[in-house]
Amino acid sequence: MAFLVKKYGGTSVGTIERIQHVAGSLKEAHEAGDQIVVVVSAMSGETNRLVGLAREVQPAVVDVRELDVLLATGEQVTIALLTMALKELGVEACSYTGAQIKILTDDSHSKARIISIDTDRIMDDINAGKIVVVAGFQGVDEKGNITTLGRGGSDTSAVALGAALKCDECQIFTDVDGVYTTDPRVESRARRLERITFEEMLEMASLGSKVLQIRAVEFAGKYNVPLRVLSSFKPGEGTLITYDDEENSMEQALVSGIAFNRDEAQVTVTGVADQPGTAFAILGPISDLNIEVDMIIQNIGADETTDFTFTVHRDEYSRVIDFLQSRQEELGAASITGNDRIAKLSIVGVGMRSHAGIASRMFRSLSDSGINMRLITTSEIKISVVIDEKYLELGVRALHEEFELAAP
Amino acid sequence: MAFLVKKYGGTSVGTIERIQHVAGSLKEAHEAGDQIVVVVSAMSGETNRLVGLAREVQPAVVDVRELDVLLATGEQVTIALLTMALKELGVEACSYTGAQIKILTDDSHSKARIISIDTDRIMDDINAGKIVVVAGFQGVDEKGNITTLGRGGSDTSAVALGAALKCDECQIFTDVDGVYTTDPRVESRARRLERITFEEMLEMASLGSKVLQIRAVEFAGKYNVPLRVLSSFKPGEGTLITYDDEENSMEQALVSGIAFNRDEAQVTVTGVADQPGTAFAILGPISDLNIEVDMIIQNIGADETTDFTFTVHRDEYSRVIDFLQSRQEELGAASITGNDRIAKLSIVGVGMRSHAGIASRMFRSLSDSGINMRLITTSEIKISVVIDEKYLELGVRALHEEFELAAP
Repeated sequence: MAFLVKKYGGTSVGTIERIQHVAGSLKEAHEAGDQIVVVVSAMSGETNRLVGLAREVQPAVVDVRELDVLLATGEQVTIALLTMALKELGVEACSYTGAQIKILTDDSHSKARIISIDTDRIMDDINAGKIVVVAGFQGVDEKGNITTLGRGGSDTSAVALGAALKCDECQIFTDVDGVYTTDPRVESRARRLERITFEEMLEMASLGSKVLQIRAVEFAGKYNVPLRVLSSFKPGEGTLITYDDEENSMEQALVSGIAFNRDEAQVTVTGVADQPGTAFAILGPISDLNIEVDMIIQNIGADETTDFTFTVHRDEYSRVIDFLQSRQEELGAASITGNDRIAKLSIVGVGMRSHAGIASRMFRSLSDSGINMRLITTSEIKISVVIDEKYLELGVRALHEEFELAAP
Repeated sequence: MAFLVKKYGGTSVGTIERIQHVAGSLKEAHEAGDQIVVVVSAMSGETNRLVGLAREVQPAVVDVRELDVLLATGEQVTIALLTMALKELGVEACSYTGAQIKILTDDSHSKARIISIDTDRIMDDINAGKIVVVAGFQGVDEKGNITTLGRGGSDTSAVALGAALKCDECQIFTDVDGVYTTDPRVESRARRLERITFEEMLEMASLGSKVLQIRAVEFAGKYNVPLRVLSSFKPGEGTLITYDDEENSMEQALVSGIAFNRDEAQVTVTGVADQPGTAFAILGPISDLNIEVDMIIQNIGADETTDFTFTVHRDEYSRVIDFLQSRQEELGAASITGNDRIAKLSIVGVGMRSHAGIASRMFRSLSDSGINMRLITTSEIKISVVIDEKYLELGVRALHEEFELAAP
C-alpha cells in the first residue's frame, strides 16, 4: 500500500490494446491498495503527426503559443481513453488536463517550467478511492494560456506531481526494465541495477537519457522524490533512483556503471598563450554559434604556450574546425587539429568519492587491453576518457569485468 | 465595417488547404475593417475517428465525461491550425478553447447548454486588432469539467458568442450558399432567399436542418442575433435570418418556401371512443417507447367514435403498428392501419398570417396536379399535407410555381 505516481510514455499507450493493458496493471495495483495518480503521454506517433500538421501550415517558423494548443490535444486524447478503459474494468477514475488541475508554468511556450500544482482536486478523488489520470507534458501559464514542457516533459510532469503530492514513489514505465550497469547491446553480461543515486543517474546521462529525461532526474533529486524506472511490458522491480543514504553507502559498489558516447568529436588548439582569457577567446565564439561543448581539457604547457582540447557533437565537427582555422592567426595558435573517430568512455559511482585507486584500476585495465587514452577528465563521481572509437566495445567490456559489475 | 462572429464547420476546415483558404477569407474581411471572432468545428472526420477510439475502449456504454474530454481535442486542433494559418498570412490572431474563455455550461455531458461566456479576454484581443479563434462545440461546467454541446453544437457556440458579444451578425459558413425556397435537387428553379424570419426557418426545419442546427436558430431568435448562412466555398450574400420587422413585412412574400420530408409514416387508429383520454391512451405508451411523434390529427367522427392519426419516423413504423395491434382490444379500436409510403409537404411563410386564401390556393394547385391529400394540419405560418410519396416531386414543383417562388 503506497501513494504512487505512475507515468506511461507514448509507446506504452501507443494503441488501444496497450491502453487496455495499462488499465489492467493499474487495476491490479489499485486493488492491492495503492493510491494512484497516472501521468500519460500522447499515443506514440501522435505528437509527430500534430507537428507535421503545424509545419504544413507554417513551414518556416511555427507560432509556439498555437503549437502548444495543438500538441496538448495529444495527451488529452490519452487521458480520456485510459480513463474509459479503467471504467470499463469497473475502476473509478477521472481525467484531468494540465489546465484543470492548474499545473502552473512560466510562459515559455514549448519549454515551460512548472511553478506549482493545485492538488486539491486530485486529493479529493484519491480520497474517494479513484485513480486520477493526468495529461503529462502540459500546463497553463498565469493567464490561462496552454503551455508544454518540451519533448519528454511527461517525465517532468510525473516528478512534479510526485513532489507536490508528497508521493512515496514516482514510477516511470518505459520500454526498458531499468537502468543497467552498461548497454546490454555492448556487454551482454550488463546487469540491471536495483538502486542508483540521482547523482550517478545524472552522470550516466549518455546511458540514462535513453531511459529518463535528465530534467526529470534533476527535479526528482531537487525535491527528493524517489524515482523508479520500470518496464510497462514485463513485470519486475526496475531500478530505484534515490539519494544515497548512509546505510546503503556502506555497502555501495565502487563503480555503478559504465557509460559511453560515440557522438563526440575532439578539437585541439595547440600552442596558444598560457594566459587568462585564452579559453574564453576560443570557446566564446563557439558558444555564440550555438554549438554545445562537452569535455574541456587544458594541460600545463612546457613553455609559455598551452594546448587546449574540447569535444563537440560529431555533427558540428567540421563546422568548428573550419571556423577555428579561419581564426587561427587571431588566436595565435600553432595548429588546429581534431579527430571525429573517437568515443568517450566513463565509469560512474558514488563509491569513488571515498575510495582511492579507482582511476588507476581503470587506466591499468584499459592499458592491459591495449587501449590508448587520448584525454582524461574527472569529477567527484565520474572518470571519463576519450579513446579511439574502434576500441569502444573492448573498453566497455574490460571495465565491466574490472569492476565486477556482472556480479549480483 | 462590422463586428462579426463567423462559424466554419468541419467540411470548411477539413484539410490544411481549406484551413488556409478560410484564413485568406478572414484576412480579407479583417483588412476591410471588420472585427472578427471565428468559431470552428473539428476537421471533418476527426470527431468520428475519436468516437471510434472511444467505442473500441468502451463498446457498450461510453463514459460521457471522458468522451467530452476526448472529443474536445478535435476543435482544439482546428483553432491552433487556423490561428497559425492566419499568422502565416501576417494577421494577428489568438486561439481559445471553451475553457479558456469560460464558456460556462450546465453539467449535462455530451448535450450541455450554455449558461454564460466570459467576454473580457475576447474583447481585449478584438480591441488590440486581433482575430479571435474559438473552439466551437465545447465549454466547461462550474467545476471546470470539459463539456460538449452535442453534434452541430458549434452553430450554438457561434450564436451564443454573437449574443454575448452583441455582434452585428453571426455568419454560419457551410457547404450550401443559403436557404432556398425549396430543395434545388427537386425543383431546379428553387431560389436562394435573401431573408427569412426565425419562425419560418424553424418551420422549414426539414429543409433547414441540412443548413443550420435548429437549436442555434432558436437561440438566435431568443437573443435576437441576426444569423446569416453563407457558403465557405463560393462568394455571395447567403441568406439572412432575422425577426420580421415592419417595413419588411409589408412587402413580404405570402409563402417563403416549400418544405418536405420523406422520412415519415402514418398510423391511423379508427373507431376509438370520442372522449377525453383517448389521445393519451394511444400516444402515452408510444412516447414511453421513446418514439417521437410528428403530426397529430383527430377529426370529429360521425358517431360517438373518432379516427386518430399520427406520423412517426419511417424506421419506427412497424414497431408502432405491432405495438398498437397488440393493444387493439384494450384501446377498443375498430382497426389499426397505416402507410409508410407517404411524404409530408408544407408551405411556410409569415405572410400567411395576414392573408386569407393561401390554404385554398395550395389545395387547388395540388388537386389540379391530380394529387390527393391524405392528411392536413395547419399552424399560423405553415400548412402541411400528407400525400403519396410518389407524388412528392410533382407537388413540390406545383406549389413552387403556384406561389411564384422562382421569381426574384
